[in-house]
Amino acid sequence: MLIAHPQSMHFDAALPLQSGASIRDYHLSYETYGTLNAAKSNAVLICHALNASHHVAGVYEGQPKSEGWWDNMIGPGKPVDTNKFFVIGVNNLGSCFGSTGPMHTHPDTGQVYGADFPVVTVEDWVNAQARLLDALGIDTLAAVMGGSLGGMQTLSWTLQYPQRVKHAVVVASAPNLNAENIAFNEVARRAIVTDPDFHNGHFYAHGVVPKRGLRIARMIGHITYLSDDVMNDKFGRKLRDAVTSTQAERDYKFSTQDVEFEIESYLRYQGDKFSEYFDANTYLLITRALDYFDPARAHGGNLTRALAHTQSKFLLVSFTTDWRFSPARSREIVKALVDNRREVSYAEIDAPHGHDAFLLDDPRYLALVRSYFESKIGVGL
Amino acid sequence: MLIAHPQSMHFDAALPLQSGASIRDYHLSYETYGTLNAAKSNAVLICHALNASHHVAGVYEGQPKSEGWWDNMIGPGKPVDTNKFFVIGVNNLGSCFGSTGPMHTHPDTGQVYGADFPVVTVEDWVNAQARLLDALGIDTLAAVMGGSLGGMQTLSWTLQYPQRVKHAVVVASAPNLNAENIAFNEVARRAIVTDPDFHNGHFYAHGVVPKRGLRIARMIGHITYLSDDVMNDKFGRKLRDAVTSTQAERDYKFSTQDVEFEIESYLRYQGDKFSEYFDANTYLLITRALDYFDPARAHGGNLTRALAHTQSKFLLVSFTTDWRFSPARSREIVKALVDNRREVSYAEIDAPHGHDAFLLDDPRYLALVRSYFESKIGVGL
Repeated sequence: MLIAHPQSMHFDAALPLQSGASIRDYHLSYETYGTLNAAKSNAVLICHALNASHHVAGVYEGQPKSEGWWDNMIGPGKPVDTNKFFVIGVNNLGSCFGSTGPMHTHPDTGQVYGADFPVVTVEDWVNAQARLLDALGIDTLAAVMGGSLGGMQTLSWTLQYPQRVKHAVVVASAPNLNAENIAFNEVARRAIVTDPDFHNGHFYAHGVVPKRGLRIARMIGHITYLSDDVMNDKFGRKLRDAVTSTQAERDYKFSTQDVEFEIESYLRYQGDKFSEYFDANTYLLITRALDYFDPARAHGGNLTRALAHTQSKFLLVSFTTDWRFSPARSREIVKALVDNRREVSYAEIDAPHGHDAFLLDDPRYLALVRSYFESKIGVGL
Repeated sequence: MLIAHPQSMHFDAALPLQSGASIRDYHLSYETYGTLNAAKSNAVLICHALNASHHVAGVYEGQPKSEGWWDNMIGPGKPVDTNKFFVIGVNNLGSCFGSTGPMHTHPDTGQVYGADFPVVTVEDWVNAQARLLDALGIDTLAAVMGGSLGGMQTLSWTLQYPQRVKHAVVVASAPNLNAENIAFNEVARRAIVTDPDFHNGHFYAHGVVPKRGLRIARMIGHITYLSDDVMNDKFGRKLRDAVTSTQAERDYKFSTQDVEFEIESYLRYQGDKFSEYFDANTYLLITRALDYFDPARAHGGNLTRALAHTQSKFLLVSFTTDWRFSPARSREIVKALVDNRREVSYAEIDAPHGHDAFLLDDPRYLALVRSYFESKIGVGL
């Protein structure tokens, strides 16, 4: 079993942010797995999505259930094989899992940041990650890899540091959010900021947490992560506490507030759990980073022109039932790369699980990534 | 211009409800358009969906902008022609537009119902509508017609009163909600009931309204009413207050709470407007009626068996981009009717507008309904 060791790196120097603000005296939590070779040519950076962290793979000593969020993908003998690659997971700025975020102290004021934490973008995260790599003495990455929002960071790496990325693995991602994606983010944010316990983002000082808003945000999120099909298969119209799986086994309760259907119970449980550990300001920051990401924007909306400066090779993966970041969105990226004559592999995996599929054990998906890393990514050993 | 005259009918006798409870001393608001013929054979009942009322067609005297919610469909010379048909719109029990609902007084207690208003189902509404028709001296309906939740009532009419319905026009509907539909309803309800101003459904006494929850509920609703395509066409990633329509014309504000995108502005506006007039308890009741509707449930989930007792002729209409009640759901009903050798016409309209299409001016859709009413529905004049 791979044992993970969380580490932290402090940065004194101010990091200029896309907004014009900057952040100084911050730290990044990270983990590494495997061994950096002498040529420093086998490093793989993993970028995380909304609800994840630097703890990508393995478990913590004595905590057998503490698997990293991409432990099925990364580890000894896994598709991204830590016997061969030196894998780095890093928690992004503004997150709530270790790196400097809204619950930490602002060095200028001595107060908790709260809502005053600066707005961070995908580009800012990539710059912060690049500084971490500098500190680790790694100039060039064998690969950057991420799913969803992590895929956006991966794509941004190829634009911000084209010469530092040999391969980019972009899974279940998109070149930007569409109106519906932004809409769901906005509803979630409104639920949080209109929760009276939010206190304009300074709830820490009040000893409360805007749990009502976080619950709603998470419930909305969960609906968009799952496909219609998998929701119907898993929950359908099944009643909670039905005597048997036959839905007609018990009568309706005829209540507007009691849990009646299994899907309600599932969503409430997910919402409750999330509201216990996730930071409300982080939720706002990360969904906004999603909204803002749009590399084509500076090129009049032309993604092909936006990707003209990439130098990496690409693997893109999408999932047929993902309606959050549909295959069509991945194909936009593929087309723009092909237009630029970049070397790009693309796979559309026929998986039933919707957006969540990128985290799950689909054998074709895992085999595909394994094959790409084995056959395409040289580490100059 | 058709001038509408709202009316109200009082009912002393208790109406038994599906839950086992009953409701007495209630009234129903309704409107009629056109003239009932001597044979009383030209009556058409219109059933409404979540956010609508008995005010189906025409305008109120001196209020030229007060068009009924289906005014493009119903009126003199319109697809459902009130020169020929006697059209009845009725507001459902538990609604907040005139008929007895949660903001009215419970005759047993003298207190406002609030959360004590009984849970009502599609079947209960149909029974209440049937009593209204009894009082109007109408035994048989030339047609019952409705979209979305109104389509469910229409379908239920053909099951509860098979001999009283000659034709059933079921638009953009479904034989029940799927897990995702229930999930969206549940998130909206949780937003309402966890709003501190909800006061367990007795907010009237506190002089407040759970507007935060209603706003969130409405924003979620709006996302599900629109197709992805129409949202991208109408809003896309356009910034609010951009100097021109070119999105790059102004810079991002880099704020998590300010309105940045047009879609955010639209949703906030819709949410605010809705929270000013819609009743929170009504929202819970109506979404629950949607959840509960499932005529196949008493037949082990077999819709064909459930529809075996229908005697009406059917027109079903769905819209290609409706992801709330997709064409596949309408086809389930069509299949079950065909299995039972019922006379059924079905049209899948290629419209971009999603679920909302059933209220909009699609020429093929309006022409189809016109043609059905002109050629198929005899009124025995």
